[in-house]
Amino acid sequence: MFKFKLEKTSGFARAATISTSHGKIKTPVFMPVGTLGTVKAMSPHELEESHAQIILGNTYHLYLRPGHELIRDAGGLHKFISWDKPMLTDSGGFQVMSLAALRKISKEGVKFQSHIDGSRHFFTPEGVIGIQEALGADIIMSFDECPPYPATREYVEKSLKTTLQWAERGKAAFKNAQKQALFGIVQGGIYEDLRERSALALMDMDFPGYSIGGLAVGEEKEDMFRITAFLNDILPADKPRYLMGVGTPSDLLLNIANGVDMFDCVMPTRNARKGSIFTRHGKMIIKAARYKEDFSPIDPDCGCYTCQHFSRAYIRHLISMNEILGMRLTTIHSLWFYQELMQMARAAILEDRYSDFLAEMLPVIDRVI
Amino acid sequence: MFKFKLEKTSGFARAATISTSHGKIKTPVFMPVGTLGTVKAMSPHELEESHAQIILGNTYHLYLRPGHELIRDAGGLHKFISWDKPMLTDSGGFQVMSLAALRKISKEGVKFQSHIDGSRHFFTPEGVIGIQEALGADIIMSFDECPPYPATREYVEKSLKTTLQWAERGKAAFKNAQKQALFGIVQGGIYEDLRERSALALMDMDFPGYSIGGLAVGEEKEDMFRITAFLNDILPADKPRYLMGVGTPSDLLLNIANGVDMFDCVMPTRNARKGSIFTRHGKMIIKAARYKEDFSPIDPDCGCYTCQHFSRAYIRHLISMNEILGMRLTTIHSLWFYQELMQMARAAILEDRYSDFLAEMLPVIDRVI
Repeated sequence: MFKFKLEKTSGFARAATISTSHGKIKTPVFMPVGTLGTVKAMSPHELEESHAQIILGNTYHLYLRPGHELIRDAGGLHKFISWDKPMLTDSGGFQVMSLAALRKISKEGVKFQSHIDGSRHFFTPEGVIGIQEALGADIIMSFDECPPYPATREYVEKSLKTTLQWAERGKAAFKNAQKQALFGIVQGGIYEDLRERSALALMDMDFPGYSIGGLAVGEEKEDMFRITAFLNDILPADKPRYLMGVGTPSDLLLNIANGVDMFDCVMPTRNARKGSIFTRHGKMIIKAARYKEDFSPIDPDCGCYTCQHFSRAYIRHLISMNEILGMRLTTIHSLWFYQELMQMARAAILEDRYSDFLAEMLPVIDRVI
Repeated sequence: MFKFKLEKTSGFARAATISTSHGKIKTPVFMPVGTLGTVKAMSPHELEESHAQIILGNTYHLYLRPGHELIRDAGGLHKFISWDKPMLTDSGGFQVMSLAALRKISKEGVKFQSHIDGSRHFFTPEGVIGIQEALGADIIMSFDECPPYPATREYVEKSLKTTLQWAERGKAAFKNAQKQALFGIVQGGIYEDLRERSALALMDMDFPGYSIGGLAVGEEKEDMFRITAFLNDILPADKPRYLMGVGTPSDLLLNIANGVDMFDCVMPTRNARKGSIFTRHGKMIIKAARYKEDFSPIDPDCGCYTCQHFSRAYIRHLISMNEILGMRLTTIHSLWFYQELMQMARAAILEDRYSDFLAEMLPVIDRVI
C-alpha cells in the first residue's frame, strides 16, 4: 500500500501526501535517523510528540546488530522498537562505502568486513531486499554503490552501470510490494549526463519513488543544488523524491525549492548531543560562556518540552557534565524545530509563497547565534 | 514547614507522612539520587511517573558544578531542574571523604581539592549550611565527617566529637528553618556506644529528623543491620530516620524492619545503566545470552513505560549498543520497581503484616534471575 498525491506546487517546491501501510506522511518531510533501531536519546513517545511522521532505520547497522532475522522474529522493526507510524530503511550502500573495512565491489555485490568485529559479509542486491523485507519498513531502497567524492567520471560511470543492474535485480527479487514500496536510487555523482542516464533508466523500471543518493558526501553545496535542480526537470511529478542524508536547515529549504519531498539526516540529533542546537533564529552553541547564567529557554517562542521547562543555563550545565538528560533535551528541541521548519515550508507552499518564505528564512537559519 | 506524622507501626516498621514546603511524602520512602541536578537518564516528568515523591541532590557536586550561587540565582534547585516536589540535599561529608583529593580535616572544617580540576576548597559546617540554603532543598543535612571503613575506634571517636561540634555550629548558623528542615547525622561507625553517644547528643540539640550516616561504606551487612536495630531503640519515635546511601531491595526491606523511614541510593539507577535491572522476581542481567531472542517484557506484570512497550530482546540490544534509550528504559523500570517496593512495604505496615511481607520478599528480591 503506497500512494503519492501531489497537492500543490509553489515554484518548484511541492506539497504532497504519501500514504503507506502505517499511515500518511505530509511533505515536505524530515525523517529522524534511528540508526540501530533507536533515534539516539529519544523514546518513540517523544518522537511522536516532536511531530515526526516517519523515521529511518539503517539496513547495514541493523543487519550487523541485532540482525535482521532477530528483528523479523520479533515481528518486524516497527514492533521491535515500538513505533507504529511509517518507517523507511536505506540500502546499506552508503554505510558499506563509508564504514565497512576492506570492501570489494564486483558485479555480483559487495564483500566487506564489519566495522565492528572484522567479520566477513556479502551484500547482494537480492540479499539487501531480503534484509529489508525482514525489517519490514514501509519504504525500502534498492542496493546501490555510493561512489566516494571526489571520484573520476570514469569511476562514477562504471559504478552507475553496476547500480542500475542492481536496481533491476533487486526489483525482480522484491516480493512484498503489497506492504512495502521499493525506491530506486539515482546516482551519477556531480555529472549531469550520468544523473540523467541514471534517472531515466530507473524511471523505465517504474519505481514508486526515487531517491537521490551520492550527494552530501563532500562535494560543494553548489554542486548539490545544481544536481537536485537538474533532476527536478527529469524525475516524474507524480512520484516522491527523497534526497538521502541531507542536511542543514538551509540545505532542506533550498532543496525543497528544487522539488525534493523527503529528507533524512543525523545532523539535528548528532549535533544536539554535542550541544549544537538548531533554532528558528540560528544555531546555538550551548556551551558558550554567555549562556552560563542565562535563565531563559533555548527559544522562548518554542512549544517543545525542553523550551517549556528548562533554561539555557541548566542545559549548558547538563551538556557540560555529559549528562544524558542534556543530550535528550537538546535532541528534543532540535527535532521539534526540524519538524516545525517542514510544517512552515509546507504551509508556505500551500499558500504559494514559498520563495518569500525562503528569502525570509535563509539569512537567519544557519547562522550561529 | 516540616511535619512528621507516624501513622502505623508493624513490628518496628513504620508508616508515616512527612509534610514539606513542596508537598507530602508517604514513608517508607526511596529517594532517587540526582547527583548533578539530574537523576541520571531521567526527565522530571518520568520521575513523577515513576511515583518518586522526593529526590536528592548532592551538595558537594552542585557546589563544584554549576555552583550553588548560580543555582540560587536561578531561583533555587527546584526551579533550576524543574522539579516541584520535595527535595533533599546531603552534607557533602561522604563525597569529601570518598571523592576529593588531599583532604585535610581540622576542627574548623575540611580543606580539600576538587576531584575534577584540583582546585582548592574549604568546607565548614556553617558554609555547608549556606550552600544548602542557596540550593533550597526541603530537607538539608548537617556537615559531618564520614569515617572510612575500616577505622579504629579511636579514630571514629575523635571524628564523632568533631561531627557533633559541627552539628551544633551548623544548627546555629541555619537561618531558613521556615522553609527547610535541618537533619543531624548520627555517626559512630560500627560501635554501638559511639552511635548511642552521637544519637543522644544530636537529640539534645533537637533536630526535626535524624540521618544515619557512615554505613554501607564497606562494613559487613550484619553490622549495618545491627546498628540500625540498635538506633531504633534510641532515636525518638516522632521524628523521621533517614539511612544514607542504602541500598539493595533487601537492604531497604530489612532496614524498614529496623524502623528506618527514608533511603537514597544510586544503586537502581547506576546498575540499570549497566543493564542490571531490579524486578520483583530478582535481578536481571539483561546482556545475558538467554535474553537475546526473548520478546517478553522485563516483567510482564509491571506497569512502567518500559514494560508496557519494549521487550527484553530490544532492551538487551540497546544496552549492548550503549544506546541512551537502553539506559533510559532500564532506569525507568528499576526506579518504578523501587517505588513499588516501598508502596508494598507501606501497605504491609498499614495492614500490620510487615513480617509476613518481609518473609515473602526476601528469598526472591536479590537473587539473579
